[in-house]
Amino acid sequence: MYSNGWDAVIITGSDPHASEYPAPRWKQVEWLSGFTGEAGDLAVTMDHAGLWTDSRYFIQAEEQLAGSGIELHKTRIRDSVSIPEWLAGKVSVVAVDGLCQTAGFIKELQACMEEGNEDCRIIDVPDMLDRIWDDRPYYPSTPVTTVGEEVSGESRFRKITWLRKFLMKENCDAVLVTSLDEIAWLLNVRGNDIEYNPLVISYLLVTMDSIKWYVRKVAGDSVDQETADSFAELESDGVEICSYDDVAIGLTDLSSEYENACIYIDPGTMNYNVYKQIISSFPADFVKEGTSPVILRKAVKNNVEIRSLREAYLEDGIVMEKFLFWLEKSLKEGRQISEYEVSEKLTSLRSEVPGYRGNSFANISAYGKNAALPHYSTPVSGSALLRQEGLYLVDSGGQYIFGTTDITRTVPLGPCTAMEMEDYTLVLKGMIQLASAVFPYGTAGCQLDILARNALWRSHRNFGHGTGHGIGFYLCVHEGPQDIRQNFNSQPILPGMVISDEPGIYREGSYGIRHENVLLCVGDGGNDFGDWLRFETLTCCHIDTSAIVRNLMTADELKWLDEYNERVFRTLSPCLDTELSEWLYSKTRGIQ
Amino acid sequence: MYSNGWDAVIITGSDPHASEYPAPRWKQVEWLSGFTGEAGDLAVTMDHAGLWTDSRYFIQAEEQLAGSGIELHKTRIRDSVSIPEWLAGKVSVVAVDGLCQTAGFIKELQACMEEGNEDCRIIDVPDMLDRIWDDRPYYPSTPVTTVGEEVSGESRFRKITWLRKFLMKENCDAVLVTSLDEIAWLLNVRGNDIEYNPLVISYLLVTMDSIKWYVRKVAGDSVDQETADSFAELESDGVEICSYDDVAIGLTDLSSEYENACIYIDPGTMNYNVYKQIISSFPADFVKEGTSPVILRKAVKNNVEIRSLREAYLEDGIVMEKFLFWLEKSLKEGRQISEYEVSEKLTSLRSEVPGYRGNSFANISAYGKNAALPHYSTPVSGSALLRQEGLYLVDSGGQYIFGTTDITRTVPLGPCTAMEMEDYTLVLKGMIQLASAVFPYGTAGCQLDILARNALWRSHRNFGHGTGHGIGFYLCVHEGPQDIRQNFNSQPILPGMVISDEPGIYREGSYGIRHENVLLCVGDGGNDFGDWLRFETLTCCHIDTSAIVRNLMTADELKWLDEYNERVFRTLSPCLDTELSEWLYSKTRGIQ
Repeated sequence: MYSNGWDAVIITGSDPHASEYPAPRWKQVEWLSGFTGEAGDLAVTMDHAGLWTDSRYFIQAEEQLAGSGIELHKTRIRDSVSIPEWLAGKVSVVAVDGLCQTAGFIKELQACMEEGNEDCRIIDVPDMLDRIWDDRPYYPSTPVTTVGEEVSGESRFRKITWLRKFLMKENCDAVLVTSLDEIAWLLNVRGNDIEYNPLVISYLLVTMDSIKWYVRKVAGDSVDQETADSFAELESDGVEICSYDDVAIGLTDLSSEYENACIYIDPGTMNYNVYKQIISSFPADFVKEGTSPVILRKAVKNNVEIRSLREAYLEDGIVMEKFLFWLEKSLKEGRQISEYEVSEKLTSLRSEVPGYRGNSFANISAYGKNAALPHYSTPVSGSALLRQEGLYLVDSGGQYIFGTTDITRTVPLGPCTAMEMEDYTLVLKGMIQLASAVFPYGTAGCQLDILARNALWRSHRNFGHGTGHGIGFYLCVHEGPQDIRQNFNSQPILPGMVISDEPGIYREGSYGIRHENVLLCVGDGGNDFGDWLRFETLTCCHIDTSAIVRNLMTADELKWLDEYNERVFRTLSPCLDTELSEWLYSKTRGIQ
Repeated sequence: MYSNGWDAVIITGSDPHASEYPAPRWKQVEWLSGFTGEAGDLAVTMDHAGLWTDSRYFIQAEEQLAGSGIELHKTRIRDSVSIPEWLAGKVSVVAVDGLCQTAGFIKELQACMEEGNEDCRIIDVPDMLDRIWDDRPYYPSTPVTTVGEEVSGESRFRKITWLRKFLMKENCDAVLVTSLDEIAWLLNVRGNDIEYNPLVISYLLVTMDSIKWYVRKVAGDSVDQETADSFAELESDGVEICSYDDVAIGLTDLSSEYENACIYIDPGTMNYNVYKQIISSFPADFVKEGTSPVILRKAVKNNVEIRSLREAYLEDGIVMEKFLFWLEKSLKEGRQISEYEVSEKLTSLRSEVPGYRGNSFANISAYGKNAALPHYSTPVSGSALLRQEGLYLVDSGGQYIFGTTDITRTVPLGPCTAMEMEDYTLVLKGMIQLASAVFPYGTAGCQLDILARNALWRSHRNFGHGTGHGIGFYLCVHEGPQDIRQNFNSQPILPGMVISDEPGIYREGSYGIRHENVLLCVGDGGNDFGDWLRFETLTCCHIDTSAIVRNLMTADELKWLDEYNERVFRTLSPCLDTELSEWLYSKTRGIQ
């Protein structure tokens, strides 16, 4: 920094495609700071190093940063100061790896810094860490597969045609799609370049008469058979396979070949490096910035996807019931089992499902006080042993070729304290209230959020994370544009959207509780008062009733719970062996 | 329009001070269209006349506009088109009365029209209607009174000092306050220039060393004794009394006397005519636009105001109980009483309270199907007669020198239908759920709104107005910045804020139900999870339990209701005569 004349450096935890979880090559924050949380950014000046992260990772960050000299800056809390706000006025020259910052963030940084100092400069240093990170991992490059219409419900031809209609409406001639799940959805392709996310590192340039896919390996190279077949299928649909590094050339060609070609881009996900190339290749009037239309379209699942998802959550429910049965039995038999061993068992059960393609995120397998970290990372060795008391929390999900799942269960392993039971019940009330919501068209998640918190709030309790996130279809386990949280997000919840319902409570040093079902928004008729929506619960796994304080529940909530558990038994029991089925029957008997 | 070359004219229902309810002089929409609703704007082109209003007035507008050729445009509904959006692209030259349009609205209009037509022009024609409105009422001019510190809790000296500190922080030298309730609050003055709103038509110009109040009558004129005394008191506090029409001169003087004087203005409430004068008198760099700081400060009541408010709601509760008792007795005695007569009785009872200064809005006294109009205006003659069946709705409030009240009760006058009872109960559940809310600091009204709607929504029912509005202290019955409604408004509900809780349901042609209590936000302690707030119910008047469907209520809701009614009895009975006290006892017996 000193020799280059930089006052500050910002390192983010993302990749050139604004992915939420990056491949090892881009785990720059972890490599520099030792912090392994899934959301964290570093800002370093000559006399300060700081890590910015949100409440999910406060405890973890404090532990992992202890002694490093790196200071924790909390985000998403009242009066929190963002990196741009923190740097503004302090420094003049900021170096960033423009590949790993979105154009939107750099604009915000620029605006914020210019307020205090008109002479500020932002310097883009692509792959900045290459100079000091000797064994930096290379780009990932896993086999490319395709997804048939019987699973996706819509051919890539129809999706591209829809995208071109959007471009026409916007008076644009081309769009550069940089977000990996948008590309995977548009082309009906999947890969495994990022752990847990079935994506292919690539860019996609669509014009009115061409589709250019810039990927790490191209036809002709010694690619595996699966990839070669996928490429052949794509090429027969008019997709040109190009080299990842040629995207800049592709953009220059486009601007020079077509006079007055107008390009549509989304600076919210496009990296600053590519953005700069576009700004310098196209006249300002020929760059149209806006939110990618793919985000909303992808979030509204079609009927084929919905049918597949119901199947996915049924298969996942069978896995979970097998797992919970094994867990209870193992403990009763007095076996010494650790959080890690339990987690591995769950993964092993999931992997037996035909169509399984990995987990949708790292299992969170947390016993007792470890569950107080909402995003606890279970250590491979030395993880806690489970005992026949208190609460065990398991948050996990699968990637199946017919859908992505996500589920959290908090399991009472034996006697629980009165406070554990009260918290367990209040969190469950919140989950049930949100799942039972009926709401008019146009309602946004932030207007529903309090339903999941009200029971906790009335007891002066709360949780520091969002209540619900969108979930992709055999794609990312977190996807927008909808969510259910306190922050204002005007995106209405629409029929076909899938969203999690996961309130919780975390008592540092004691325990953590989270109940998570996944909901599908469906129509609920119309009348004089308007058109109505409600949720269908996709998750199909019983909720343990042994830790419930019955008199804290309303009659309606008890009814919901009994009906839910009864439905789980009725749906799953035909697929289970007698022993498991009998156990599940005992677990789902009504408590009302 | 034709001879002036105007393509369109916009007429709004407001006055030069962006008042919600204007004095007769500015009831221009009513004079032109016959529509008497409290919110409505007209836009007239050569081949179309339209009235824009919200759902509170849909039914009323359809009735009053019938046969007029004026078309109803609905606002605040999905896909609604605003006047600027509607005019954009259609016309080039729009004439407005700049006195009755806020600068903010004209900016929006300008931006919207320029999108479709760069040659568009907006022409300001102050008092445009003078040319055709022969008997247009003159400016109102009622006696000016002052409010002592024992009532306001804060002297005008301290308020002005606070305002000057704000100006210093903003690097400004002056502020022109144009909003009448802000002026009344700052100067501790009241008047009666607008029906129901104890305000004085005026402008206020505050600099670091002067306070100029521009009013319709000035000292030296033959003013009444009360006004003369008030002026003397104000002058002794350094307030210079100036003529209303001299505000333009005051602004010119300010910009010429002080070099580089910077003025702070709020274009959200300032009229376009005055705004233009400022823009032409001051260099652009010396006009700072922003929200007036008075709005928030005024909304957070101080301890003296809170103490007075509790008293005001107690006095108002006594009035309401006397009224409800009289109503029941009159009907039992077989008297023929009309909505209007009942309304007059209520006003008469309120007027007996020492310190009463009028109603805070026009009583809504509506029986049966008339109550389906949320803002029903009871006709003086020929109003409906009440019968001993169904529901009677009364929404009313008083202006007392120790506070402004607002209350709605829906009274079962005899047998009710099953649907009436169900609706009555669901609306009541909503009111109770909101009143019982506990929430962390930082929570905004739109995040709480669903609590008042959830019971209705789950039965596919809804209401088309907001749930709660702020209420002034011996000021306007509607005030910002807080509210509780679906629309996003990021203003958190803060301790000291007063807000109504008034869900309802309206079945056109049948009946309407609304339950309204007024809430005060108070602190509720802090713990590991943060700092907490809750509501204290100020309204002190029993809720009739005869139309409640008990099994639709939760145990918590029944408990809340019984405790509330018991508290009303306990608080009010010492102030009531034996007959009334016994009646109230019978009305407040627990139903749990």
